[in-house]
Amino acid sequence: MRLVRHGEPGRERPGVLLDDDTIVDVGARLGDPGTALLTAGGLADVRALVESRADLPRLERSEARLGPPIPRPPKVIGIGLNYADHARESGMQTPPEPIAFGKAPNALTGPTDVVWLPPDSDRCDWEVELGVVIGQHARRLPDEAAAYEAIAGWCISNDLTERAHQFEHGGQWIKGKSHETFNPLGPWLVTKEELRGDLRLTTRVSGDLVQDGTTADMIFPPTELVRYLSWFMTLEPGDLVSTGTPAGVGMGQNPPRFLRDGDVLETAITGLGEQRNLCHEIQLPAGETNPLQQPATTR
Amino acid sequence: MRLVRHGEPGRERPGVLLDDDTIVDVGARLGDPGTALLTAGGLADVRALVESRADLPRLERSEARLGPPIPRPPKVIGIGLNYADHARESGMQTPPEPIAFGKAPNALTGPTDVVWLPPDSDRCDWEVELGVVIGQHARRLPDEAAAYEAIAGWCISNDLTERAHQFEHGGQWIKGKSHETFNPLGPWLVTKEELRGDLRLTTRVSGDLVQDGTTADMIFPPTELVRYLSWFMTLEPGDLVSTGTPAGVGMGQNPPRFLRDGDVLETAITGLGEQRNLCHEIQLPAGETNPLQQPATTR
Repeated sequence: MRLVRHGEPGRERPGVLLDDDTIVDVGARLGDPGTALLTAGGLADVRALVESRADLPRLERSEARLGPPIPRPPKVIGIGLNYADHARESGMQTPPEPIAFGKAPNALTGPTDVVWLPPDSDRCDWEVELGVVIGQHARRLPDEAAAYEAIAGWCISNDLTERAHQFEHGGQWIKGKSHETFNPLGPWLVTKEELRGDLRLTTRVSGDLVQDGTTADMIFPPTELVRYLSWFMTLEPGDLVSTGTPAGVGMGQNPPRFLRDGDVLETAITGLGEQRNLCHEIQLPAGETNPLQQPATTR
Repeated sequence: MRLVRHGEPGRERPGVLLDDDTIVDVGARLGDPGTALLTAGGLADVRALVESRADLPRLERSEARLGPPIPRPPKVIGIGLNYADHARESGMQTPPEPIAFGKAPNALTGPTDVVWLPPDSDRCDWEVELGVVIGQHARRLPDEAAAYEAIAGWCISNDLTERAHQFEHGGQWIKGKSHETFNPLGPWLVTKEELRGDLRLTTRVSGDLVQDGTTADMIFPPTELVRYLSWFMTLEPGDLVSTGTPAGVGMGQNPPRFLRDGDVLETAITGLGEQRNLCHEIQLPAGETNPLQQPATTR
């Protein structure tokens, strides 16, 4: 089952995308159950509703605006350096344990929405990733089988990153990861049992293939990541774990290449569809200065 | 105005704590508006309701169980090393810009709830902090005056941290900050205009005064932190920013001292009340091993 959320930004309703490319608007009957829709019970309700052939509104996918396929997550956890080739291009060691960082949940945006580059930012980078959406509370899971049980499904998660904000302003990565629109998600969520095997992940920037990886090269597989994280924090229905990116990010190119106003960013993963985001740079109003070019004010 | 949330865990209702130590149950009239209660309009509604002397249920504070004084935050941002004396005891430089990290919002717990120490964790540490709660969307704020406008109020935030998980498992601090119950919040939120001047922050562990600082020693004041963060992410009503801890954390003691099963953890800040949390260590069921003592499983 492929879940989507359709409608205007911030007011999306849940739907199911059928093989004929129409969307069944399950929100017309279920309302918006929020993250409860992602639990085993919620998914069963949606499936039963669609299979009942109830008289629900339908719309053409081509006519719908899609938002992220899940409601605002309670939390978003990113995984760093989970592909050996990407660790190498970043000049970092392959980590002995998964690297986890926080990302603001309000960075999420739809799979074809505009990505807004922060003003004066010249190091905005792409990271196509397999996104794992959690379907049940997960606390100190004993093994990967239990982690698989806790997963609701899979989607494309582009973990956009401003490298200067990530690395050159002190401290932790969250500063470079959390700008609004820095997490295009979707177009759909595939329920877990419907996607198997190794997946190809690609990114194109204005037509150029820049990332072309496979989940076969992951250092820690998704179930291991979920099991591991559950010993440091309690995962909840609707949480998003972005499982790391393969080689080919902009800072790894020779010479480095970053997103520019007008670039078209396209990501794809086997079975999970494609994203296409136009990039625009935010312009500060005339006369306003950008304080990130200035030192911070101490007391 | 002092806002509280009272009731059983996960089902708290908003209330206002009066000077006579009774709680007016505004939730009986307003329901639970969630984070909207923290906007200027939401706070004005609560104030008007209390001043109307409407016939609302009241309860004695001593008879109420208090949860965190705000609903689950959309995000929690911690600030590192924001007091020079704490940076020194941590063996780190005073940062030229604020250090920000993510903390799981489901780490929040009430001001007198049990703090659960993870199994086999022997480096659980305290960090009393001034918590800043956001009251409006804040995006690229021009100055500290605009940041002050974006703040709803203040509360005690204990940013508990498992130091081994923070520092010895690779990557980012979030792993040590995000265990359930690792963020006692409250007992109340004071609306911003009712708290001025320098505040004393203290922590006692089983009766011993271990932290005794003043917000006068902050490197970056709260309004500067909010202004600064708004250039990296959009803050929203209900977001929590924990503004850093003064000296006296356990890892800075000589010899280091950490929380043990049975310890009583007490924090206080001028005007913001006191927290008192009993610490219990989680015991794994017999026969279960703790995988954090083992290497992670690679593919």
